[in-house]
Amino acid sequence: MTNRPLIGVFDSGFGGLTVLRELLHHLPGADFLYLGDTAHLPYGSKSQAAITRYTRAAIRELVSRGAELVVIACNTASALALPSLQDNAPVPLVGVVGPGAEAAAAIVPPDSTVLVLATEGTCNSHAYAEACATHGLQAVEKPCPLFVPLVEEGWTDGPITEQIADVYLQEALAAAPQPPQAIVLGCTHYPLLRPLLQREIAKLDGNIPIVDSAEATARHTVTLLPTAANPGSAEPRLHFLATDAAAKFQRFAPRFLGREIPTVELITLED
Amino acid sequence: MTNRPLIGVFDSGFGGLTVLRELLHHLPGADFLYLGDTAHLPYGSKSQAAITRYTRAAIRELVSRGAELVVIACNTASALALPSLQDNAPVPLVGVVGPGAEAAAAIVPPDSTVLVLATEGTCNSHAYAEACATHGLQAVEKPCPLFVPLVEEGWTDGPITEQIADVYLQEALAAAPQPPQAIVLGCTHYPLLRPLLQREIAKLDGNIPIVDSAEATARHTVTLLPTAANPGSAEPRLHFLATDAAAKFQRFAPRFLGREIPTVELITLED
Repeated sequence: MTNRPLIGVFDSGFGGLTVLRELLHHLPGADFLYLGDTAHLPYGSKSQAAITRYTRAAIRELVSRGAELVVIACNTASALALPSLQDNAPVPLVGVVGPGAEAAAAIVPPDSTVLVLATEGTCNSHAYAEACATHGLQAVEKPCPLFVPLVEEGWTDGPITEQIADVYLQEALAAAPQPPQAIVLGCTHYPLLRPLLQREIAKLDGNIPIVDSAEATARHTVTLLPTAANPGSAEPRLHFLATDAAAKFQRFAPRFLGREIPTVELITLED
Repeated sequence: MTNRPLIGVFDSGFGGLTVLRELLHHLPGADFLYLGDTAHLPYGSKSQAAITRYTRAAIRELVSRGAELVVIACNTASALALPSLQDNAPVPLVGVVGPGAEAAAAIVPPDSTVLVLATEGTCNSHAYAEACATHGLQAVEKPCPLFVPLVEEGWTDGPITEQIADVYLQEALAAAPQPPQAIVLGCTHYPLLRPLLQREIAKLDGNIPIVDSAEATARHTVTLLPTAANPGSAEPRLHFLATDAAAKFQRFAPRFLGREIPTVELITLED
């Protein structure tokens, strides 16, 4: 028997494994149940109604399997579904938008502008702008729809991805009322582009620090489950669920998680 | 009352509107009911089991609304789901893979190699290779995962898309056992890249003709419903269904269909 907490982690696919990686680092005393809704991936271009339905079903599944806290690792689901699901949730829910904004606020001067790179859905929701506003910050939200497919194609470096990043960054800088003091990576795929983005922004506008909401989310989760910050006597147990293409999930996982994963259980979610 | 046939058209999203465009041109005496499964879009990276389930549900929906023939406009669904659904279908089903291969065979010498550009799912199924083999042709199947997001971002021209096309074309040419005599666009989004692809292939390997399976599919459909080739006294009636993001569907439609669409009905498909 174990008294280790079981943390549920939900994402539209395997991108959220970048969040799980940070959770494993900061909460070594917990076990983890990860659910990727690969049947509906990507969420970035889907409607709020659909994303809310999928997220509700995923939370229900994770809780029915024993999760006592659920991290919504997907930025789009955090932005579009979390606000309406938060109040009636059966367990505490942790999103990535609030911690991401808070992490930016911690490193920039008051009244700064921050640049948020995210999916179309996340940007249109203005969830980051609202979260940043609570810290007195102004957010410029820039959709970067090609970043997810570039990462999934494995093109995380090279001249083509540099040029695409330059287009997005230049458009974003042109739209900013003042030079941004930080860049928030508002999508779980984007940390894989971090070295390239850091290099490109240095060419365009100096050395702006990049904030990744994965680490901020893990730190926030520690405040809710402080005992799990201490490593237990055993390795964390990990179990993976996906709603489609389990084999592909398993193949892509190491790129995001930094380790191989043993098996992926294929499940169907009731809407 | 009308005796105009009602043709169902199924696609994973709005890409199949390039096929509807050709159907409208070749079958002006028919009415059309178009269903885009935008909740599960894109199909290119999903599993055969899931795509078969979604396609079966879509055909059932279209037939229940009166469709007497269904065109599977999505290449991935044609490749992965059609073979297993064909025999027990309640109405005739027309896919795009067979007509695409036939159109290529019509313009190349015997024993030629043709280059098929398609999604990962379509390429992995080798449906085009099999269809080409029935005409004595050899197919080199090249997945081009960035083409769909590039088209959806509206980047159908310009140096970045040229460079990405060059990478894919050069890799494909290097893998071809002999210079290809034709290029088949094996995805409904790719016709929007046709001018760029024609230009890039001319730089790399001369003037290889490009075959778009949309027109070939429409010509094949005419053989099944010959009376619909004659324009009736009325304009074709069009009705559009989508499983998510109806507003986005409506906004993207003109780029693929070449005309505005009035309304999109949001529906849920039972798996």
